[in-house]
Amino acid sequence: MILKLREYGITDPEEINLFKHCVHPDRPEPLDLHMAMFLPTLRNQATPEQMDRFYTPAWNLEIIGTYAQTEMGHGTHLRGLETTATYDPATQEFVLNSPTISSIKWWPGGLGKTSNHAIVLAQLYTQGNCHGLHAFIVLLRDMKTHIPLPGVVVGDIGPKFGFNEVDNGYLKLENIRIPRENMLMKFAKVEPDGTYVKPPRAKLTYGTMVFMRSWIVGGSSQALSRACTIAIRYSAVRHQSETRPGEPEPQILDYQTQQYKLFPLLAMAYAFHFVGQYMKQTYLRITGDITKGDFDELPELHALSAGLKAFTTWAVSSAVEVCRMACGGHGYSCSSAFPDIYVRFTPSCTYEGENTVMMLQTARHLMKSYRQAEAGQQLSGIVSYLNDKVQPQPVTARPTVVDINDLASLVEVYKLRAANLVELAAKSIQQELQHRRSQEDAWNNSAIDLVRASDAHCHYVVVKLFTDKLRDISDTGVHSVMSTLALLYALQGITKNSGDFLQAGLLSVPQVLQTSVRIKELLAQLRPDAVALGDAFDHNDKKLNSVLGRYDGNVYENMFEWARSSPLNATEVHESFHKYLKPLRSKL
Amino acid sequence: MILKLREYGITDPEEINLFKHCVHPDRPEPLDLHMAMFLPTLRNQATPEQMDRFYTPAWNLEIIGTYAQTEMGHGTHLRGLETTATYDPATQEFVLNSPTISSIKWWPGGLGKTSNHAIVLAQLYTQGNCHGLHAFIVLLRDMKTHIPLPGVVVGDIGPKFGFNEVDNGYLKLENIRIPRENMLMKFAKVEPDGTYVKPPRAKLTYGTMVFMRSWIVGGSSQALSRACTIAIRYSAVRHQSETRPGEPEPQILDYQTQQYKLFPLLAMAYAFHFVGQYMKQTYLRITGDITKGDFDELPELHALSAGLKAFTTWAVSSAVEVCRMACGGHGYSCSSAFPDIYVRFTPSCTYEGENTVMMLQTARHLMKSYRQAEAGQQLSGIVSYLNDKVQPQPVTARPTVVDINDLASLVEVYKLRAANLVELAAKSIQQELQHRRSQEDAWNNSAIDLVRASDAHCHYVVVKLFTDKLRDISDTGVHSVMSTLALLYALQGITKNSGDFLQAGLLSVPQVLQTSVRIKELLAQLRPDAVALGDAFDHNDKKLNSVLGRYDGNVYENMFEWARSSPLNATEVHESFHKYLKPLRSKL
Repeated sequence: MILKLREYGITDPEEINLFKHCVHPDRPEPLDLHMAMFLPTLRNQATPEQMDRFYTPAWNLEIIGTYAQTEMGHGTHLRGLETTATYDPATQEFVLNSPTISSIKWWPGGLGKTSNHAIVLAQLYTQGNCHGLHAFIVLLRDMKTHIPLPGVVVGDIGPKFGFNEVDNGYLKLENIRIPRENMLMKFAKVEPDGTYVKPPRAKLTYGTMVFMRSWIVGGSSQALSRACTIAIRYSAVRHQSETRPGEPEPQILDYQTQQYKLFPLLAMAYAFHFVGQYMKQTYLRITGDITKGDFDELPELHALSAGLKAFTTWAVSSAVEVCRMACGGHGYSCSSAFPDIYVRFTPSCTYEGENTVMMLQTARHLMKSYRQAEAGQQLSGIVSYLNDKVQPQPVTARPTVVDINDLASLVEVYKLRAANLVELAAKSIQQELQHRRSQEDAWNNSAIDLVRASDAHCHYVVVKLFTDKLRDISDTGVHSVMSTLALLYALQGITKNSGDFLQAGLLSVPQVLQTSVRIKELLAQLRPDAVALGDAFDHNDKKLNSVLGRYDGNVYENMFEWARSSPLNATEVHESFHKYLKPLRSKL
Repeated sequence: MILKLREYGITDPEEINLFKHCVHPDRPEPLDLHMAMFLPTLRNQATPEQMDRFYTPAWNLEIIGTYAQTEMGHGTHLRGLETTATYDPATQEFVLNSPTISSIKWWPGGLGKTSNHAIVLAQLYTQGNCHGLHAFIVLLRDMKTHIPLPGVVVGDIGPKFGFNEVDNGYLKLENIRIPRENMLMKFAKVEPDGTYVKPPRAKLTYGTMVFMRSWIVGGSSQALSRACTIAIRYSAVRHQSETRPGEPEPQILDYQTQQYKLFPLLAMAYAFHFVGQYMKQTYLRITGDITKGDFDELPELHALSAGLKAFTTWAVSSAVEVCRMACGGHGYSCSSAFPDIYVRFTPSCTYEGENTVMMLQTARHLMKSYRQAEAGQQLSGIVSYLNDKVQPQPVTARPTVVDINDLASLVEVYKLRAANLVELAAKSIQQELQHRRSQEDAWNNSAIDLVRASDAHCHYVVVKLFTDKLRDISDTGVHSVMSTLALLYALQGITKNSGDFLQAGLLSVPQVLQTSVRIKELLAQLRPDAVALGDAFDHNDKKLNSVLGRYDGNVYENMFEWARSSPLNATEVHESFHKYLKPLRSKL
């Protein structure tokens, strides 16, 4: 694969990723972090001199690198990382150390056995002061023999839920000295005498996080659409139970309960696809502005991207398992592909920012915006609805009748729900403060409400973006079925959270009952298009890698073939018979 | 282990299971089905002559057997199984066949490589009539060489999500002839001339199912309490984030969001433990009655056990993953034990009756009871609340004020919610029938409502049984903390389903808001006891097998030790360097 990348001249990280997906569909590999983190970090943060020294050898795999940030004791809370890099002006070197057990670098992919270099994130100390996290290039292993250098304790962290192809590693640094020139100095610098020079724009790192998160949101749609495609196709193949005596068994896709499991998830896959698109496009538009020095929209997108990352990955992590279980026992077999999809997707709830922390990050932005609105400030962007909450409109201007068949009306009601829960969280904090609790305790004692508020805010954004997207669809047939999906997504969210809508007086009891009835109609309406709506995601058989989800539907014959090729079937009598069963028998 | 079982004279299946758990904590094995299904089925369904012929050699592992029921094309819907056993009076033999690909036996544990016999469930044909499923003992492999017999196509079904230690197998039978005496004939019989003799009591199989399900409910508490113990202990060890500048990082167990994830699950583990106990006790009491010919209570327990099996396994399957993710990245490592707990537990949502089918089975009982109540019949047992629903009490007799701090009051409100949702489902069916739909379509078009009704019924039963259990606790300290857990379990269920309670007018909006506030208080109240409440389940370190969940709390040191012993770390330079990386480099 790497030779082919060279041959075709593929160098753009996203193109590398797409190519890799064609060769090894969705299989993680030891060189992934080299490709996706080590090389791009060099490109973004290395000086021209460092590019010369590291990039070309890294491109030729003489240098194989990884990105070592997370430690045993700290992940999402970056300020807590303990690894130190202390500048020694006498030798113009940094001395890197893992001062505690919990400071051992833990989890970086390819670190254990593959890499001979790592970009190590460490607290920079110079002239007696700590300047926070900075990135350092550290040689780990002898370039010829691949033996770890003295003072470098490196290895694999052992078996995991998935990612078995990757040597996620640990790294303990014991007084490792690296030249001053190995600190990535495109932005921040340490002068030879140890003087620290601040980076010009502290907020630039924001951008990468937003980009990574938009990529995760898009990835969540990919994982979910694969799971839905498999489950829906198989549900059209599988026949089960007798509904009418003497008649053939129906396809399980005809059962309302099966439709209720799968179709809302199909709608969700489309919703998250559009959200991922929106985030990426907005990111690209904003980063255009950043180069012109316009940061205005960044905090909002940054805050939103944290919550949306959590909202989508949590939902999809559960949803993949719903799809798996909707396929009965066979979903548990690796021939279904579900076990792989799950163990590869579910870590995204934790990496790039643990989800609860992400939700609270979005909540921080919401609380700040709410206070600004309370102070009479006119908010811009998505949170502007908080102005209406704080300064209620005259009664006549407010929607009095919600039409549950009208998406615009549903977007409005989701918005009001979000506004209501943001207010509830803000009031909880205010009450705590009135009881003379500290800011920190008030925040912690309101954390459940804050997460709920973020969740409702994200939910509103997703429903809104899905609805907005419909305007771009000109084909009437596509527009019609996409509207049905959007409506199902919105109504399903209402039944699942009906308490919120009833509590805030946004919907009446008859409307909630009507919602359940309407959902059943939408399920029946989607039934004829369900398989095609999965197909539309265009996951080919090689990429799906699922016997259950085969395009041609020949599931049972191929499941039998797949099983027969299991390594355990290489011999009719397995060695365990001679090794264990026979000797045991003779002792009884 | 097997030699020790002999030495100690352990023969009771439950005792065998407990002993096995001490030796290999929670590890499935190829002989599991031999022990847990083959031997007990012989004991229950074999004639004395068959016992002589099969049981003793099976006990001595000359015969190794499994229980082959599920086929590729059919699982829960037993009547759909396709394997045939046709009696041939000329030779006094049964001829067994797998007539289609989908009829191949699929999934039985130990079938692929280990067993030389199987109890095969097949449709019995004799004298031109089909008499439904019966059990036959089939020799699969040569007793000496272990080579499959001609016409027996047997092997392993390939890798799965878990249960890697077990050779789950397939079995295709091609005109396999077995003597008439190999049909298990303790109940039903086929005479030498082919005359079929019915079993005396068709409902006896009910009992085993109820027992298995009560065992699964108890098992769900075991799995969940292990997950909770690990997550709560680790949350006391892990410190993260800075809440107050300059102060040490708090234990993550002090975060409200973490408590909100874990404490309701801890309460759930206790709730399900008591439910499992109740089911087992009731089963034993009722089976006492069965031998006296009193079947009255069996349908209710049978219907309830189906729903409770689904209710508890779904809840725990999700909950284990919540516990895993509550431990951040380290939860994903096998050192946490979470991956193992999950892949071993989650199949219980599918086996012994697929959960949605189970919920609909309970719903069938509820609908029947509702119609009986409508017809003026006085119901007995748990469903008797439907009488009140159908024949409303005078207003003065109904509770007007719900006290959310009073468990008796909450049991009542859960009961009314269940009654309401049962009524909603019954009315949906009635409406469908009024629209001239067939019984079958009316049922299917109401299936979502039926599952909701079952779920609410089970939820009521769980809250009720937990509350009832408190009466048995005399120690005031234990009583107090158990009451707090029961209250948390009940209130958490209300906030998660607040729409149901608001919709039915059972709770007011202020009460729902008050519930959320009360939950926060209960979390804070449980915080000091949380670790001890996990400890109380008495999972020792060997059984937990979790570095994160160690009793002594020395997580980080031991995680490092655990990682260092990973097979990949046997050499400093892994063979992949010489085999792949070096040659690749030379080509670039």
